[in-house]
Amino acid sequence: MARHRLVIPLRWADFDALGHVNNVTYFEYMQDARVALIHDFGADKSSLKEIGHLVARNEIDYLKPINMSDLQVTVDLWISRFGGASYDVQYEILDQAGEVCARAKSVMVTVDMATEAVMRIPDAVRESMSRYYEEQPGL
Amino acid sequence: MARHRLVIPLRWADFDALGHVNNVTYFEYMQDARVALIHDFGADKSSLKEIGHLVARNEIDYLKPINMSDLQVTVDLWISRFGGASYDVQYEILDQAGEVCARAKSVMVTVDMATEAVMRIPDAVRESMSRYYEEQPGL
Amino acid sequence: MARHRLVIPLRWADFDALGHVNNVTYFEYMQDARVALIHDFGADKSSLKEIGHLVARNEIDYLKPINMSDLQVTVDLWISRFGGASYDVQYEILDQAGEVCARAKSVMVTVDMATEAVMRIPDAVRESMSRYYEEQPGL
Amino acid sequence: MARHRLVIPLRWADFDALGHVNNVTYFEYMQDARVALIHDFGADKSSLKEIGHLVARNEIDYLKPINMSDLQVTVDLWISRFGGASYDVQYEILDQAGEVCARAKSVMVTVDMATEAVMRIPDAVRESMSRYYEEQPGL
Repeated sequence: MARHRLVIPLRWADFDALGHVNNVTYFEYMQDARVALIHDFGADKSSLKEIGHLVARNEIDYLKPINMSDLQVTVDLWISRFGGASYDVQYEILDQAGEVCARAKSVMVTVDMATEAVMRIPDAVRESMSRYYEEQPGL
Repeated sequence: MARHRLVIPLRWADFDALGHVNNVTYFEYMQDARVALIHDFGADKSSLKEIGHLVARNEIDYLKPINMSDLQVTVDLWISRFGGASYDVQYEILDQAGEVCARAKSVMVTVDMATEAVMRIPDAVRESMSRYYEEQPGL
Repeated sequence: MARHRLVIPLRWADFDALGHVNNVTYFEYMQDARVALIHDFGADKSSLKEIGHLVARNEIDYLKPINMSDLQVTVDLWISRFGGASYDVQYEILDQAGEVCARAKSVMVTVDMATEAVMRIPDAVRESMSRYYEEQPGL
Repeated sequence: MARHRLVIPLRWADFDALGHVNNVTYFEYMQDARVALIHDFGADKSSLKEIGHLVARNEIDYLKPINMSDLQVTVDLWISRFGGASYDVQYEILDQAGEVCARAKSVMVTVDMATEAVMRIPDAVRESMSRYYEEQPGL
């Protein structure tokens, strides 16, 4: 039911020569929202070198540009599907006024980084994440 | 029929703490392939400040990671749909051994940057791009 | 006397394949600290397209690496010299434990972006900045 | 006597909202020139995870901006000092017309990444690098 929220201060480098947040940068925001989620579960970033959460697919619809007057974006994130060794993350990216600027989705796969083999989502991770589970009719 | 090909030398910053090209960086490669296409049509990068080619949607399937032993990636790009003021770009991203590492697609919209209004694809641009048109049954 | 302080959440992309914040990223932190300073003076980021504060010189000493367990860095910034059309900014970059990780300095030049000509620091900017002036015996 | 030369295609993301290559990006060019040097000595990028060449100090003087009409930069690099466990790298960054846009210098330290202890420059590395040694009266 709950969504995980991360507020990210914009950096000067997020803006490109057209004066908007560049389309590539949104994927960085999504990435940092996922890393913050894992931090909230009590795992350090460096734990990702052992159990990798790799992106198998990314998709995004850009709805309105983010302008230079904004100081931050907000990323709302929830889990919309759990599989054995994969899960789907959905996102809404909000500008400073709280308007949805983009809707996005990632398909994640859990990987044992030592062997590079796909592994089941660890039970503790699945349990922590289930707090953010929300059934969702697609992107 | 033809595909537009761009070879991009990898940068140290393309790799993240897991030692692979980061998932976000692929969108930078796609972006640079699009900019190279526009350069090949005789238009400078700064022309994009007048007629913007904005990304309305991005999607990618990651097939295999790109490792630190690689020195370059190759981006093959083609146009799979022409609308009045929008078009679809498809990509294959190849590692140094020539294997497909990712397949991706962008929906582009042409915009008059002075007014921020959607505008028809200029005829000269459409004609130049049509050289790279290839009907494609989806991603 | 006062120093301007900005706390910057680390991003996953700040870390390179060696698992530390990459040496290049520190200059991004310095840049964002300067932009935050200008914001605090009541000027929008987009004002920088009119009166540019361009970097003429950058220098940094790295004292200790920033590790993946950290969530943020702090940038303390002060003005150590005022010239007619230039000024010096000095920085201390602190890790999450409050230890100084790097000391740095930039020489800035004010430029009229329309003509690309060097221009005197506007009086209002100089006055605002003088709050952060601190004599300093070099880097 | 010889200088090591690397030509780097510009990326769209290298340009910031002011329409020039951003001051931070130059350090990325310097970094990639150093990595290319190490590659030329027959060592893979991933070897840097064992013997790290860490930056202890960076400095740069920006001489003229790089504009959006340019497609590439050239980085000329040479070694201006050899110590026991450290060395200095100097750089000239040239725009597409061949004009020097920036002069820079890095102080590098060799580190055993397993123990994070400073280590002597390996003899083979020192010998390879000496080809690019050039006495230089400072920056």
